[in-house]
Amino acid sequence: MYIEKVKNEMNLPETVKIFDTTLRDGEQTPGVAMTVDEKIRIAKKLDELGVNVIEAGFPVSSSGEVEAAGEILKMGLNAHICGLARPLKGDLDAAIDADVDYIHTFIGTSPLHREFKLKMSKEEILSKSVDAVEYIKDHGIIAEFSAEDSTRTELDYLKEIYNAVEDAGVDCINVPDTVGVMVPTSMNWLIRELKSELKVPISVHCHNDFGLAVANSLASVEAGADQVHATINGLGERAGNASLEEVVMALITQYDLKMNIKTEGLVNLSEFVSRITGVKMPPNKAIVGENAFAHEAGIHVHGVLAKAETYEPITPEMVGHTRRIVLGKHTGANAIKAKLKEYGIDLDKNQFDKVFNQVKALGDKGKCVTDADLRAIAESILGRAKEEIVKLEGFSVMTGNSVLPTATVKLSINGESKTAAKTGVGPVDAAINAIQRAVSETGDIELQEYNIEAITGGTNALAEVFVIMGDKEGNKATGRSTTEDIVMASVEAVLDAINKILILR
Amino acid sequence: MYIEKVKNEMNLPETVKIFDTTLRDGEQTPGVAMTVDEKIRIAKKLDELGVNVIEAGFPVSSSGEVEAAGEILKMGLNAHICGLARPLKGDLDAAIDADVDYIHTFIGTSPLHREFKLKMSKEEILSKSVDAVEYIKDHGIIAEFSAEDSTRTELDYLKEIYNAVEDAGVDCINVPDTVGVMVPTSMNWLIRELKSELKVPISVHCHNDFGLAVANSLASVEAGADQVHATINGLGERAGNASLEEVVMALITQYDLKMNIKTEGLVNLSEFVSRITGVKMPPNKAIVGENAFAHEAGIHVHGVLAKAETYEPITPEMVGHTRRIVLGKHTGANAIKAKLKEYGIDLDKNQFDKVFNQVKALGDKGKCVTDADLRAIAESILGRAKEEIVKLEGFSVMTGNSVLPTATVKLSINGESKTAAKTGVGPVDAAINAIQRAVSETGDIELQEYNIEAITGGTNALAEVFVIMGDKEGNKATGRSTTEDIVMASVEAVLDAINKILILR
Repeated sequence: MYIEKVKNEMNLPETVKIFDTTLRDGEQTPGVAMTVDEKIRIAKKLDELGVNVIEAGFPVSSSGEVEAAGEILKMGLNAHICGLARPLKGDLDAAIDADVDYIHTFIGTSPLHREFKLKMSKEEILSKSVDAVEYIKDHGIIAEFSAEDSTRTELDYLKEIYNAVEDAGVDCINVPDTVGVMVPTSMNWLIRELKSELKVPISVHCHNDFGLAVANSLASVEAGADQVHATINGLGERAGNASLEEVVMALITQYDLKMNIKTEGLVNLSEFVSRITGVKMPPNKAIVGENAFAHEAGIHVHGVLAKAETYEPITPEMVGHTRRIVLGKHTGANAIKAKLKEYGIDLDKNQFDKVFNQVKALGDKGKCVTDADLRAIAESILGRAKEEIVKLEGFSVMTGNSVLPTATVKLSINGESKTAAKTGVGPVDAAINAIQRAVSETGDIELQEYNIEAITGGTNALAEVFVIMGDKEGNKATGRSTTEDIVMASVEAVLDAINKILILR
Repeated sequence: MYIEKVKNEMNLPETVKIFDTTLRDGEQTPGVAMTVDEKIRIAKKLDELGVNVIEAGFPVSSSGEVEAAGEILKMGLNAHICGLARPLKGDLDAAIDADVDYIHTFIGTSPLHREFKLKMSKEEILSKSVDAVEYIKDHGIIAEFSAEDSTRTELDYLKEIYNAVEDAGVDCINVPDTVGVMVPTSMNWLIRELKSELKVPISVHCHNDFGLAVANSLASVEAGADQVHATINGLGERAGNASLEEVVMALITQYDLKMNIKTEGLVNLSEFVSRITGVKMPPNKAIVGENAFAHEAGIHVHGVLAKAETYEPITPEMVGHTRRIVLGKHTGANAIKAKLKEYGIDLDKNQFDKVFNQVKALGDKGKCVTDADLRAIAESILGRAKEEIVKLEGFSVMTGNSVLPTATVKLSINGESKTAAKTGVGPVDAAINAIQRAVSETGDIELQEYNIEAITGGTNALAEVFVIMGDKEGNKATGRSTTEDIVMASVEAVLDAINKILILR
């Protein structure tokens, strides 16, 4: 609401183009490298999301970059496919040969870059830039020009070089805050200065060294910038670039701009990029983090349950997320009641108080209380023990460098003991083969899907196994287990699913 | 530099107080809970860092909160120790009884909070707030008042309630952007409005739902705010609160404010909080992330090596960080030469080209190249035996439902056989424990990170294990293996990394 008080002072455009640099800047994240196939898959999803330009790579830097650009072009996406190039003939030719329809050329313009990196004069840099733009335009390709480290470049020179490339026919000039030294007020000032000087569309490229990449991008849009460079998950060198999901959601919901972005795909895309790059987002990542729509504190959950807007600026559905109510030490009675209701568990006042006190006590010990913990606590207070048809009586598995992985299992099925031994390609495979054999007389129940969540941390981290089992009659059930032993977790998950199927019969 | 163009329009204070809420807001992060002892250790470090106020908890919510506040008070820190309390007698008394010297009381003031959460009229809320402030001041305690969800509260009412608590003797009013809906321009506007209305110091508390918590805090300071609420690592509910390290570093280096913060302790404190809360920061976290001062792209490394400022806004030493040069697919010859020089490896042109091409090829396959990988490549091109120091001669592991997971390993280390057996929480843990034991005489090499890529499909899918091992001298190496047997893959990956480290010695 308070944004309405200041909108009249802004120079907001009607819409903003999104120039995605996940495949280029994102890949420049130290430690991140993508295969050609991975780049193709990300490009496809970025196009589905609706970005305007996809910077596919830096063709001159390696043959993999050229191949990736080529393969992405073959898909015939809606987005422009851009190649990065220094204003050098080799770089430009590599991009042109890759057949991209958009070239982003850049050269450092700040005193630091001129003196220590390029060892070139202002005049040389300007003339190389103009030549590059003319060369790109001579090939009928869209040209975007970046004055690298523009935010530490003298204003006069910056205007001079942008004017020169505008005269040379550039389609868009980009203003990179290369080391992230701008604050929103100064960024806004600079873009207004350039806007008053130039006719071509203005793009910005903000780095996140002080956590201000998104804010500086928005401040630029307030000054009239037409395009924002951004990456999924804010990937990029050092502290990264502006996070696409944050920029887009702020522009749409806070500035009311019309954007052709399918925002409900954002969480999925963030997770996809996370898996491919191995760069995991923290739970408190804005928009897409695991906790972005999670609520723990008792007081707040009360508000959220009454009306979600009390503690949520947008709905989780808007970005493809889901709301989670998490139990913990601050958890109030309202949240626990809501959870139990969700599971269809009815408790009287006395029983509820017991559950509540157990949850609090776990919290004070520094433990988190998961949904499954709460259910187990409630079920045990209700004195309900789930009757299991198949029970594990004995299990052992052996593997090694000269041992064929072998598992032996003893199950009690409807009270009758069954034993089976089987080998497999590994201990998990052997274990599940043995269980399937042991229950085969009761009915063929087969593993249909087996998943382990990625484990990060130590070898004593919890392994979370999720399986889907099915029988010939089409009954299907999921099974889950989480323990520190990946083999035991697999066995428990499979038995969990088998029991669910057998109960159906 | 461009900030100088806009500073004259700002209403900057001489300094800004930091009100740290890591122990309270940080702990409200879903899934995070701290024990009393952990809170004490964090409080001590926050005090050493130099924050002005430490919000120790919400005394009424649990007995653990009261105990934590009490223990922190006993330490006699320089910072004020604050307790949170709703304007209810029970809450206030709990804080007073905990003996804190500072109470932060809050109540929702927006229409949404009045109607759906509190079900109270404007008048009731105002009168409760005034009563609470008077009650706190009657006990000789410093009082800070927050109008929760102030940024969605009508301006007239907001001014009315802040004026009323000012008249009641409040020491500081706080403006919480509870659901993170402000942008820097609107936040600046609102704080200027309040500044012109009130005499008491103004504090702000920004949430990060659109990634703008830091920017909104800075915009408030530009408008004259005297204090900022912040948390280490930006922890907090949903997308978290303003990140202390980002706010502080921007205020000092971009706004040139004088702050009594020992900034060189920031990275250490961030890692400490990360370990205690289990909330790992991503590599691209500003200021403290693993990559905040890491450089991969070849082009940039050239600049960084010539003069670090070309690609770094501040020195890593300023925040207790270190610069890292990381090799990867974009790596240029300059970076590789610098690394090899660092290791004292001399190569002729022909040998260097071979190393360079191998690094590039690994990059194109989507692999990262660690320092140890580069050394291994260079050593092998120099024909220096890539003879494995440690070889697997025998290995077996057993697990089951009534078996403690146990592994036996026989290694040949420099030709000498070593045998070790160890247990673990699961077969992988047991196997790695046994290997670590067997090589312990050769040197303590410990597992630092263990990752399994998620497995989807069947139990015979390939398991990809990636480990990082390190020794006491700071040598680090990665190991990888991909086989269908998750236990064998782990063993092979660990031996791969151990061999790389031993070759370095």
